[in-house]
Amino acid sequence: MRIELVTVGDELLHGTTVNTNAAAIGRRLVDAGFELAAHATVPDEPASLETHLRRAIARADVVITSGGLGPTVDDNTRDVLARIFGAEKRRTDKRVLAYLEKRYRRKPWKPVLDQARVPAGTTVILNKVGTAPGLIFKSKGKTAIALPGPPRELIPMLERVVAFLRAFSAGPGVFAGTTLRTAGIRESVLDATLREVFPDIPGLTYGLAADLLLVDIRLFARRRTEQAARRALAKAEKLLRAHFPDEIYATGAATLEQVVGALLLERKQTLALAESCTGGLLARLITDVPGSSDYFRGGLVAYSNEWKQMFLDVPAATLAKHGAVSRETALTMAVNVRRIGGADHGVAITGIAGPGGGTKAKPVGLVYIALADANGAACWEYNFPGEREMVRTLSARAALNHLRLALLDASPTTTDTTASD
Amino acid sequence: MRIELVTVGDELLHGTTVNTNAAAIGRRLVDAGFELAAHATVPDEPASLETHLRRAIARADVVITSGGLGPTVDDNTRDVLARIFGAEKRRTDKRVLAYLEKRYRRKPWKPVLDQARVPAGTTVILNKVGTAPGLIFKSKGKTAIALPGPPRELIPMLERVVAFLRAFSAGPGVFAGTTLRTAGIRESVLDATLREVFPDIPGLTYGLAADLLLVDIRLFARRRTEQAARRALAKAEKLLRAHFPDEIYATGAATLEQVVGALLLERKQTLALAESCTGGLLARLITDVPGSSDYFRGGLVAYSNEWKQMFLDVPAATLAKHGAVSRETALTMAVNVRRIGGADHGVAITGIAGPGGGTKAKPVGLVYIALADANGAACWEYNFPGEREMVRTLSARAALNHLRLALLDASPTTTDTTASD
Repeated sequence: MRIELVTVGDELLHGTTVNTNAAAIGRRLVDAGFELAAHATVPDEPASLETHLRRAIARADVVITSGGLGPTVDDNTRDVLARIFGAEKRRTDKRVLAYLEKRYRRKPWKPVLDQARVPAGTTVILNKVGTAPGLIFKSKGKTAIALPGPPRELIPMLERVVAFLRAFSAGPGVFAGTTLRTAGIRESVLDATLREVFPDIPGLTYGLAADLLLVDIRLFARRRTEQAARRALAKAEKLLRAHFPDEIYATGAATLEQVVGALLLERKQTLALAESCTGGLLARLITDVPGSSDYFRGGLVAYSNEWKQMFLDVPAATLAKHGAVSRETALTMAVNVRRIGGADHGVAITGIAGPGGGTKAKPVGLVYIALADANGAACWEYNFPGEREMVRTLSARAALNHLRLALLDASPTTTDTTASD
Repeated sequence: MRIELVTVGDELLHGTTVNTNAAAIGRRLVDAGFELAAHATVPDEPASLETHLRRAIARADVVITSGGLGPTVDDNTRDVLARIFGAEKRRTDKRVLAYLEKRYRRKPWKPVLDQARVPAGTTVILNKVGTAPGLIFKSKGKTAIALPGPPRELIPMLERVVAFLRAFSAGPGVFAGTTLRTAGIRESVLDATLREVFPDIPGLTYGLAADLLLVDIRLFARRRTEQAARRALAKAEKLLRAHFPDEIYATGAATLEQVVGALLLERKQTLALAESCTGGLLARLITDVPGSSDYFRGGLVAYSNEWKQMFLDVPAATLAKHGAVSRETALTMAVNVRRIGGADHGVAITGIAGPGGGTKAKPVGLVYIALADANGAACWEYNFPGEREMVRTLSARAALNHLRLALLDASPTTTDTTASD
């Protein structure tokens, strides 16, 4: 079964909106054992939209679309698909109408109520977040599944899409995939090691996706049954975990911050943060995780020297002698935020994110990361490459990874060590 | 001139990576007066990649590709394009080799040094961040511009791409676009107003792109000259600014946090933050802006009640009587972080982001946003829809917008008012 995705919208081609739907759909399909054969983004303009959709429908068994279902002037996907599938007659869908009338009781807006007039012969996927229902068009062995553009409306509908694909698909070849997530190994080193140790098994392949300190190893297996494919993946995972016991932090979609959160929860320990150059980025990552209030006490974004003194008791003499970006300041910040903030672990980051503020002695990218716990404190010095956003992201991720390793390690952080990228 | 984009990579189709390159390229082209006619994402596998690339090259005058240029096992774009363009012979590019040798002086890695062996007849775009150079293939009126996948390598190369397209393009029809960014109007209201007031001028069109409190109005004009297109856009902008004087916060790509930063800088005023449910998200947005240390004193992520008392002097009685999520706590946080943190403006956010923590009286989505300045303090109550990430993003953006309006407003924040979404 060949599945293609067509995302519709000038805002995607013009780059006003980043296309997160494509990734969300791709990931959900892979998890369910399906795979996108291709993805195209096409303009709203009806004639061009129709040409592109006809082409995709000719090639594929199932075409999933997102966008262009709304009530505004540039929404054309529904009408164009209705024309292609010869479903230009409309019927009123009672469930959709009831939902819209309830939602717009106070201020009914005619173009929105028109959303209940769906093309005859289509199956409706209810939209419980927004106004445009999803629509499944079918004719002559071809299927188009039209979904709305806003991610928070589209994502809940993907379960219905997967259920449809499962019912629709047949045949013995099953594709399954998994992802092993690593932190702290270079892509080139990982690639060289994988070429050496990874067994050459037909139908078992891997790929690497690197993103600032993190590299995902994506494993794929094609077998007669899903069970067989899963067994092949489990075997490969075991081999790789033996090679990279510290570096692989998760299987699947878990993030570094989720893994750190789970470790803190398991140990019934708490965390306090003191951030300078990352400006709240690390706190934001930690609190992205639902339930983080069970282990996260709070964070200080001490962006000015006054705040470092006032809230974190960093002595004026330390700042004067060593500077705000120094091993001494980082260690003081970590130790003090742990003590003052009443937490088991203190994490501090101070550095120069750029573009301004760098000197010859302390260039942009110089970052100190410190951890403190009941047994002592440790500090790492980094010289990160890249621009502001990259330095900030690398700093926050490196801090998370140091905390993860400290939580995993039987021996606590007792020494003051230096690392370098 | 028809331009198509092909982004290469299984990680994009499988959703392991969100495709931000497509948006970055689309935006840069629109700014330069060009437009992507379509965008496709295709697999790494060479045969499928070749089919897709041949198709795009047949349709378009210029095909831009991203990804698949690296030295690892799944990088095939360079070889496939070389085959399509009959450029299979290689030459050593001396500038690329010198750059790679300098960069890998300490640890030369053969597959990387091979990047200097470029297909004969191609023009090189130097990559000053990573290892894979960009390549321009040309034959029989067709052009392919191959760029590397990592955004921080690709984005600096876009200037060379735009310069190439400018030299390549000819003819009288010029397309120009601009974006007016609004905060705080519903997309449906904006659409209805635009349908009513926007003049029906041939060649002048608009589209809306909504994203959590923010709606972008994208205006496009096609005229004989770029000057004429720009004049038409300026006229339309003037009309819309007259209708939405408070809501339009920027023309172009400026973000809400950049606009707020510029206003603070202009007024030589400073800012301190006290965040609860947003957990550092607002501080992170503020410090995303280079130079924010000139006006940002710091932020407190007071995630626990203890931290609210310890660092922000919120009385235990206030927390006991009204709760951490209340108008009283929000106002105290804003007033105190301003005073203790030594800033001109204090901003506080406290709310229930979910999924846990909601009650019948205080449901998920209930958020209080407070501002304090020399003249007093004000608080707004919101009941935001959606899940954790949406509530947090809406809260941070609403706070930024309130601060922007307070900074713009001649009359300061003296009253305690209530808003509702």
